[in-house]
Amino acid sequence: MTTHEILARAKAAKPALRLANTTTKNNALQAMADALVAATADILAANEADCARAKGVISDVMIDRLLLTESRIEAMAAGMRDVANLPDPVGQVLSRVQRPNGMVIEKTAVLMGVIAIIYESRPNVTSDAAALCVKSGSACVLRCGKEAWQSANAIVNALRKGLAAAGLPENAVNLVEDTTRASSMELMTAVGYVDLLIPRGGAGLIRACVENATVPCIQTGTGICHVYVDSTADQAMALDIINNAKTSRPSVCNAEEVLLVHSAIANEFLPKVQQLLVGDRAASGKQPVQLRLCPRAAAIIPGVPAGENDFDTEFLDYILAVKVVDSLDEATAHIAAHSTGHSEAIVTGTDAAAAHFTAAVDSAAVYVNCSTRFTDGGEFGLGCEMGISTQKLHARGPMGLAELCSYKYIVRGHGQVR
Amino acid sequence: MTTHEILARAKAAKPALRLANTTTKNNALQAMADALVAATADILAANEADCARAKGVISDVMIDRLLLTESRIEAMAAGMRDVANLPDPVGQVLSRVQRPNGMVIEKTAVLMGVIAIIYESRPNVTSDAAALCVKSGSACVLRCGKEAWQSANAIVNALRKGLAAAGLPENAVNLVEDTTRASSMELMTAVGYVDLLIPRGGAGLIRACVENATVPCIQTGTGICHVYVDSTADQAMALDIINNAKTSRPSVCNAEEVLLVHSAIANEFLPKVQQLLVGDRAASGKQPVQLRLCPRAAAIIPGVPAGENDFDTEFLDYILAVKVVDSLDEATAHIAAHSTGHSEAIVTGTDAAAAHFTAAVDSAAVYVNCSTRFTDGGEFGLGCEMGISTQKLHARGPMGLAELCSYKYIVRGHGQVR
Repeated sequence: MTTHEILARAKAAKPALRLANTTTKNNALQAMADALVAATADILAANEADCARAKGVISDVMIDRLLLTESRIEAMAAGMRDVANLPDPVGQVLSRVQRPNGMVIEKTAVLMGVIAIIYESRPNVTSDAAALCVKSGSACVLRCGKEAWQSANAIVNALRKGLAAAGLPENAVNLVEDTTRASSMELMTAVGYVDLLIPRGGAGLIRACVENATVPCIQTGTGICHVYVDSTADQAMALDIINNAKTSRPSVCNAEEVLLVHSAIANEFLPKVQQLLVGDRAASGKQPVQLRLCPRAAAIIPGVPAGENDFDTEFLDYILAVKVVDSLDEATAHIAAHSTGHSEAIVTGTDAAAAHFTAAVDSAAVYVNCSTRFTDGGEFGLGCEMGISTQKLHARGPMGLAELCSYKYIVRGHGQVR
Repeated sequence: MTTHEILARAKAAKPALRLANTTTKNNALQAMADALVAATADILAANEADCARAKGVISDVMIDRLLLTESRIEAMAAGMRDVANLPDPVGQVLSRVQRPNGMVIEKTAVLMGVIAIIYESRPNVTSDAAALCVKSGSACVLRCGKEAWQSANAIVNALRKGLAAAGLPENAVNLVEDTTRASSMELMTAVGYVDLLIPRGGAGLIRACVENATVPCIQTGTGICHVYVDSTADQAMALDIINNAKTSRPSVCNAEEVLLVHSAIANEFLPKVQQLLVGDRAASGKQPVQLRLCPRAAAIIPGVPAGENDFDTEFLDYILAVKVVDSLDEATAHIAAHSTGHSEAIVTGTDAAAAHFTAAVDSAAVYVNCSTRFTDGGEFGLGCEMGISTQKLHARGPMGLAELCSYKYIVRGHGQVR
């Protein structure tokens, strides 16, 4: 089936989804979870074929991300049931005002329509994204990487059976068949069909969407996150936060990539950083962090001299760029010039520095004395997440169900004219 | 000065605006209003030159829109003082949650950054847009039509004096010097400089932005607005609403362009519509409304047969397309196929029909028993308006100060790690 035909089918599912109530949608999510588990054998067979084909083509880390097991499929189903148990965002009255002429104006959350999602190889994104779209009343058009297509197809087939069993159109969830660049381009330019495009992937995909998308688009996920250690910081706390932000999961977008240290404490503090991230880790058999140092930091501790791009790179690895700055203003100016607008933290002992940092730094999440790793829908209490928006329009930071909705004004009167 | 230089100057004004408090911004707005009035002679001279050059080039209606007088300049200044008196949207805490680990997460409204506005010839847009941007903490880059450039330039020069007098960077308000298509294209693609682009103009400008913009953009203003008269409607109320929506100001985007009438009442109701909009108006010396009729309506009342495009045209004139439908579902299906998503109304006597209409119609404002003409920032109680968004992302319907802001999460802890 062509991508255009799939888009037309998704669009045609909108009216039924618009009129579906909360119970219908929740029943559908439960039925989709049931169908997913029931299709375990088919899904594992498809996944095995994907993994066999991908071996040697993509890295072992990527293959591990692609690999499904019975328990991973059960976890995907459990995730869908969790979404069923979240409050329905659609129909929430966001504000209500009665005007002097008696008209009542309600700003009401409504579904987006058709949401297209371009992603890579993690099969659980398929069921997560489908669940979030169904719960928020939108049809979805999923476009995964070719190395994961058979797995995604088996998953989508199961989900569509669940939808049909619950009386919702199976075309509420769709998988694009074409995995070439052409289908991505078609989704980016499907004006009148796609109400929202969410690219989930690396910087190249995001850039392609910015350059080519004519449909509304939310950029997600690229994180060059900074931790700034102020001269007044509790240094033990700062070490804890740096260690957590850098090493607890280096491959994710909320991991720290750059450490900024105030020059007043650099001589005392940087050797502790080096000890913690390099010496202690090596001694306990963990992979040490490679430090890429500005010239002033390099005069204090051993490490690799930072190259031209090291302060503009999302390493997603055990690598940390380190720079010494002379002031809070120099830190915020460096962040303004090099951040991707995802998450930044200050460690400080003074409220004034905290207030200045949170006012001056223009990122989705700005932390005072805690780790950047908290930028996550679950950690923020949203219960779920479609991705982390790094743009300023519509949604910023973790995108939950509310951020997948639009709103409209419903105005009730009894004959008012202007 | 090149457009790129102007963009760079606006971007450089961001840090000062980000740290400006409410008093500073309000004082600046008062100083800008003072400076505007003080520059009346210069502004009128520039406007006279614009009008002289435009005579014979643009229509008399457009020249009237362009024309400034002393009292119009005073009204512009009063508008700026009104904006000064509105609450500051920046820094508002939109939601606050304390997580189980003790972290406090505040979702906080923040300024957008640099807002570019492409508009046509109404000089008051220059001062209105500048005031809304300054109040919401953003620098603005204004790009007006060439027939209004001298007027806009004189106005912007005055506003910049006011900014400087109040201690804010004069580059918070900027006018693009180049009025060719090249400068519009440059604004649409100024990634890294323009945080939000708002095109205010006709369908051609909006389409050009959709096709070319790589910066975040909000589509505004095109309104093919429908009034649907249900079989159960109070017909006197319906006539009032139709008359108001069509004839009170036909040139604006919230005016009615299409009337849908249920077939059960068409024989009785359509002659009343014809009497009111054609006969009565002609008898009292007002311009009659031209009715463009579907075949079923044409079998009941006199009028012009509707052509192929009449149900897809924003007339902005004393013209109304009329169609007879057999059901509420036919009405909402027609609206789904032909509306621009601006404003639609139902006139009905039953709650069930009202509920179905408001659920099924996917437009920015959906009215029950009142006129579409209320879609307006002032009428909605926002106190001001930058335009009417017809898109679903970020802002929908009238855009006030809140809609010109983004938000960020400020997270305060005491050493929490994940």
